[in-house]
Amino acid sequence: MLDRARAIQDQLTAWRRDIHSHPELGFQEARTSALVAEQLSALGYRVRAAVGRTGVVGERGAGHPIVALRADMDALPIQEASDVAYASRTPGVMHACGHDCHTAILLGVARLLSEEDFPGTLRLLFQPAEETQDDEGKSGAQRMIEDGAIDGVDLALALHVDAQTPVGKITLAAGRINAGVDAFEATITGRGGHGAYPHLAVDPILIAGHVILALHGIVSRRIHPRDPAVISIGTIHGGKAGNVIPQHVRIKGTIRYTEVEVQEKLHAEIDRAFQIAQTLGGDYALTIDRGYPPMVNSQEAVDLVRQVAEDLLGAENIKPRRQEMGAEDFGYFSAISSGAMFNLGCRIEGDERFHHHPRFDVDERCLPIGAAILARAALHRLRG
Amino acid sequence: MLDRARAIQDQLTAWRRDIHSHPELGFQEARTSALVAEQLSALGYRVRAAVGRTGVVGERGAGHPIVALRADMDALPIQEASDVAYASRTPGVMHACGHDCHTAILLGVARLLSEEDFPGTLRLLFQPAEETQDDEGKSGAQRMIEDGAIDGVDLALALHVDAQTPVGKITLAAGRINAGVDAFEATITGRGGHGAYPHLAVDPILIAGHVILALHGIVSRRIHPRDPAVISIGTIHGGKAGNVIPQHVRIKGTIRYTEVEVQEKLHAEIDRAFQIAQTLGGDYALTIDRGYPPMVNSQEAVDLVRQVAEDLLGAENIKPRRQEMGAEDFGYFSAISSGAMFNLGCRIEGDERFHHHPRFDVDERCLPIGAAILARAALHRLRG
Amino acid sequence: MLDRARAIQDQLTAWRRDIHSHPELGFQEARTSALVAEQLSALGYRVRAAVGRTGVVGERGAGHPIVALRADMDALPIQEASDVAYASRTPGVMHACGHDCHTAILLGVARLLSEEDFPGTLRLLFQPAEETQDDEGKSGAQRMIEDGAIDGVDLALALHVDAQTPVGKITLAAGRINAGVDAFEATITGRGGHGAYPHLAVDPILIAGHVILALHGIVSRRIHPRDPAVISIGTIHGGKAGNVIPQHVRIKGTIRYTEVEVQEKLHAEIDRAFQIAQTLGGDYALTIDRGYPPMVNSQEAVDLVRQVAEDLLGAENIKPRRQEMGAEDFGYFSAISSGAMFNLGCRIEGDERFHHHPRFDVDERCLPIGAAILARAALHRLRG
Amino acid sequence: MLDRARAIQDQLTAWRRDIHSHPELGFQEARTSALVAEQLSALGYRVRAAVGRTGVVGERGAGHPIVALRADMDALPIQEASDVAYASRTPGVMHACGHDCHTAILLGVARLLSEEDFPGTLRLLFQPAEETQDDEGKSGAQRMIEDGAIDGVDLALALHVDAQTPVGKITLAAGRINAGVDAFEATITGRGGHGAYPHLAVDPILIAGHVILALHGIVSRRIHPRDPAVISIGTIHGGKAGNVIPQHVRIKGTIRYTEVEVQEKLHAEIDRAFQIAQTLGGDYALTIDRGYPPMVNSQEAVDLVRQVAEDLLGAENIKPRRQEMGAEDFGYFSAISSGAMFNLGCRIEGDERFHHHPRFDVDERCLPIGAAILARAALHRLRG
Repeated sequence: MLDRARAIQDQLTAWRRDIHSHPELGFQEARTSALVAEQLSALGYRVRAAVGRTGVVGERGAGHPIVALRADMDALPIQEASDVAYASRTPGVMHACGHDCHTAILLGVARLLSEEDFPGTLRLLFQPAEETQDDEGKSGAQRMIEDGAIDGVDLALALHVDAQTPVGKITLAAGRINAGVDAFEATITGRGGHGAYPHLAVDPILIAGHVILALHGIVSRRIHPRDPAVISIGTIHGGKAGNVIPQHVRIKGTIRYTEVEVQEKLHAEIDRAFQIAQTLGGDYALTIDRGYPPMVNSQEAVDLVRQVAEDLLGAENIKPRRQEMGAEDFGYFSAISSGAMFNLGCRIEGDERFHHHPRFDVDERCLPIGAAILARAALHRLRG
Repeated sequence: MLDRARAIQDQLTAWRRDIHSHPELGFQEARTSALVAEQLSALGYRVRAAVGRTGVVGERGAGHPIVALRADMDALPIQEASDVAYASRTPGVMHACGHDCHTAILLGVARLLSEEDFPGTLRLLFQPAEETQDDEGKSGAQRMIEDGAIDGVDLALALHVDAQTPVGKITLAAGRINAGVDAFEATITGRGGHGAYPHLAVDPILIAGHVILALHGIVSRRIHPRDPAVISIGTIHGGKAGNVIPQHVRIKGTIRYTEVEVQEKLHAEIDRAFQIAQTLGGDYALTIDRGYPPMVNSQEAVDLVRQVAEDLLGAENIKPRRQEMGAEDFGYFSAISSGAMFNLGCRIEGDERFHHHPRFDVDERCLPIGAAILARAALHRLRG
Repeated sequence: MLDRARAIQDQLTAWRRDIHSHPELGFQEARTSALVAEQLSALGYRVRAAVGRTGVVGERGAGHPIVALRADMDALPIQEASDVAYASRTPGVMHACGHDCHTAILLGVARLLSEEDFPGTLRLLFQPAEETQDDEGKSGAQRMIEDGAIDGVDLALALHVDAQTPVGKITLAAGRINAGVDAFEATITGRGGHGAYPHLAVDPILIAGHVILALHGIVSRRIHPRDPAVISIGTIHGGKAGNVIPQHVRIKGTIRYTEVEVQEKLHAEIDRAFQIAQTLGGDYALTIDRGYPPMVNSQEAVDLVRQVAEDLLGAENIKPRRQEMGAEDFGYFSAISSGAMFNLGCRIEGDERFHHHPRFDVDERCLPIGAAILARAALHRLRG
Repeated sequence: MLDRARAIQDQLTAWRRDIHSHPELGFQEARTSALVAEQLSALGYRVRAAVGRTGVVGERGAGHPIVALRADMDALPIQEASDVAYASRTPGVMHACGHDCHTAILLGVARLLSEEDFPGTLRLLFQPAEETQDDEGKSGAQRMIEDGAIDGVDLALALHVDAQTPVGKITLAAGRINAGVDAFEATITGRGGHGAYPHLAVDPILIAGHVILALHGIVSRRIHPRDPAVISIGTIHGGKAGNVIPQHVRIKGTIRYTEVEVQEKLHAEIDRAFQIAQTLGGDYALTIDRGYPPMVNSQEAVDLVRQVAEDLLGAENIKPRRQEMGAEDFGYFSAISSGAMFNLGCRIEGDERFHHHPRFDVDERCLPIGAAILARAALHRLRG
């Protein structure tokens, strides 16, 4: 399968560069979706467009097992600083995370498997908006799930290119490999006044100081030390003039966790920390928006991918993937179906460029490797 | 003298209302200055315009003693909400602090004393920009002093209308009756990063929490309890996204003090509090701009005003004025010359309106009282 | 009167040294009381012993006005380190604050006035326990007041030797010259546990950290900057083993204030700060014991002492006494009667030794000066 | 093997109860050691006494492989509150953690294997002082290692009774199953003074408040969220009187970690937090004593125990053991030799009593199970 995939390297590269030079932000993937739908149709897949707003689903076969392979298609609001021929032609938008590769790889899988027969159903999910949420706070995975994309699926697989890992290697692990993420937003309210008359005011900036320190005592004290948890404040804003005590201070932050009990504990303890505002004579309003769930790789799915990858790449090229607090909306799929995501080495040796960097790029020899692993793993499962 | 002053009530009211309806911000007092210069000339004073940029000085007599009387002329960036006939005709600008009254009163003094003979020199200072500073951070008093307005002065007097005190009463005290004020501005620098990877960042918001609490321990611990001191933070700003740890947090604040040693201690201790940023792995940049000095009423000047006011109003109408942390740039004058400022009751009974309020107004019967006290006190000193 | 007082310098010195070498702690002044009572009797005073437990009252004359002069008699639990001949003969107890001088001076006054006739009543109060309280938390002044010592008094005067002021000078001021003092004591309760399992505990030490910082924000933010106020924590104790999170942290502290509204505000805000314990999942118990009131010198009494002292010492030797946050239980007397306390210079030039120091001593030439001022001021008031 | 072990239940119970009724604190295990040495000799083992001060080593066989089995023998300074016949006869000392069982089990293993032939060497380690350290801060495991107890060992196994797990089950996992532990101790030094004069002092209690909060920001911000880490403060002590600002505050605490880099980061960051004392004008002295290392179960050793336990108890009775932050000095052995420790269910159903509780007890049917697993695992490894 790896040889067959390498045989279509040019095609994979062409798809990837075409998409790279025409990046589209989340839920705006019109051109990318059209390209995907056209290619899938040409390869004989049943195609459903506008799944999850701008997503595309391609299917072959019928009945169970149903194996879903997922690629995300959206780009980032970053101005590309690279001078490669295939650099972004859209100002301020760039495929700086590698979703162009994911899409090209999954088209490659579509081609590789278009020539195979198998029992059950192969379902290819081209997902919009992994990086962003719509007005209602929903990401591409959520919208595709609402539109039935994951219905009946027995196994869901995905990959992410990884600039820290050399080409030819993958990293992989079972369990909660990415954190769940929630966002919180709060207003601390005091009583504004002149800076020369603090006794007539209730100083929300002093209260904020107390709350900040209380928030950072939560992970230290309230959560089991073995359970990963993060509370990060990203913004704090209050006041217009140096000599006026303001009425309000506004704070926004992010929460990371891997266990649901930890998530609930964090919510309760964050609220408790803000209650200091009331204790000290002010008030607060806190909202916590639940975001991506933890991404859980099932043992079954990981074992399958490992076995396939060991066959294709050799056991020495399969490394453990360590738990990270970054979030990934594939977690929505893997919360419903048994599933796994692995990292695909794409490092340009001697010229590493990190994800979200304005000169991010990959060694394109990773494309057939990714396609071969996904295709072979899907076949394995379909054929039992 | 009080009778003579009351005899020109209409004139005083007319001046005040004219100025009130044409308010001008600090260092923009073109119309007001022109009016003042014209009136002073008409009354036979030697007039110097453009003293301290938009200030006016009027003089009569020669030699010592030199007695300076000062009125400030600037208005505030407030939209007047009153519907009186003489309401501001300039959108967004209003005499909400009563400087219109001060100017009218001092014109009244000019008229009252234009008919008097005395040894020495009477110098009337119509000052711009008491509320604001120019690009170089200097207020109207500083600019007038640079232009020689206080040169050789033996006694400087001023008043401020006071909406908390009834008409017919004044409040007065010797000593440091208004605080000195400095402004500080600081940037706390950490190392920005993704909110999910706090260990790779240095969180300037957490550092800010520590610094805020350290700043509020200074007055509690480092300053003699009997010495008034204030550190107020007015603004705190950092970060753009809830899930990104920012690089910087910016803080602005104000300092109040009455003793120079306290001022120096506050500066040193504020710097020390920000040093926590370095201790915790970040950095900071702090600048402290020295503003108005404490306003010190000399015993001699206060005794003079008290004696005059007791004669005019009765001893029962002279009340002690308590120390306040608000600032007043007459302190620049009283730091050079023996001087005093007193508060002149202007309360509208049953309809109190506070200074800086969009419907602020005064009971105009205060105008002749103020004029009479200043005129009589000046004569006293001139005639020995 | 000063000459007459200096004529009995030897007697004053002898009394002082006798008392100094036999110091007694508060409410244990048996020998001192006996000495005082004996001397007063010998001088023809009506003597009441055991007033306020170990206090003595001597009286001459009858009817109003009644002028009370007060000396405190108690020593401190300090081991004297001096090698003077009259050093303490009682291990661990020392007259390190100068109350021996006060007692000797008041005996001198007794002698000086034993030869004078006057209308009204002279009442000499030799008070126990200025430095300490009994089991019920009451000091010597309180106990003497309970026993009628201040009944009917029209004027109460006292002095304190002052090692910062040269002999021949006094310092004096009207108003709230010493702070009121209250003591607080609190237990913060968490939930103890093993240090390796913080999530199962509620850490009272972390809570204490928050409360400490909140307590030190009170003076900075909640009290008018011109009003003196102090909250000092003196003790913090919690835990027995480094690896066990304790159940409790105990905190004791002291409060200083000069205005009753400030006292009430401090009490309320201290309680509020401890409420953070509840907010953070623990609990607290707080008790605040009211101690000495602010000591207020009346203008009338100060004017009297000033006039007398100017006559005796010259106006240049009367200096203003600045407000201090130290407490003095003469405040109990001056809260009932018009009164004043002044500081009597006792500095040994070139060898200053501060109060409460184990080698504290005075220049004994201060003794007749103190006696003369008190005697003359009393006579003035008695004779109208 | 399980049947053979159950056949000696009476012997195991007798040993355990004898040891239970004669508990001895760490490095004082004289009677227990003598009992162990006597039994081992009787069973034909070569015995070395006084290994690691009060430890005993028994050996059979020669050459490699060398398999070490370890039991700890020390009791705790707890007053037993149980009324069982075999309750502690030594006031204030109790086998409240189950080391009596460990010793009895290992004696059982000695008996079971005394009848077996095998290649290589069986080495039985009866260790003192697992719970305590001697004057030089060394525990029993460290002292035995210094005396050569682990020399040449190819595999080391141990068990701990577990009151949370039913009899007949064990829990087991590879990796860093117990935390490393260090102890820290610090003195924060300010400048003592009277509580009424805070400006003359440097308040170490306020500094402690800042340091406490900074310490609890470390785990939250400076450590990778997936790496377990604990900083717990166990004691804080400062001050003698509520109205005196003390000179010092003393703090003791414990650190937990599983990765060496985390340990080093914690040490550096704790030092940084205390540096706030210097920043705020005081000083500090900090010492960190390195304690038990993380206990690492090797995969090899865990696989062996699992296989044996599955054979004896059934796979359904082998549960994963979750990482805990409690410490265990078997980590010293497993840092040198491949090793594993497992938890042996000992719960009394319906009457659970936790470790370190004054009425702690076990269901003694766990004793033959523990002995059988250890004996069989040792034989497996010895026989290859």
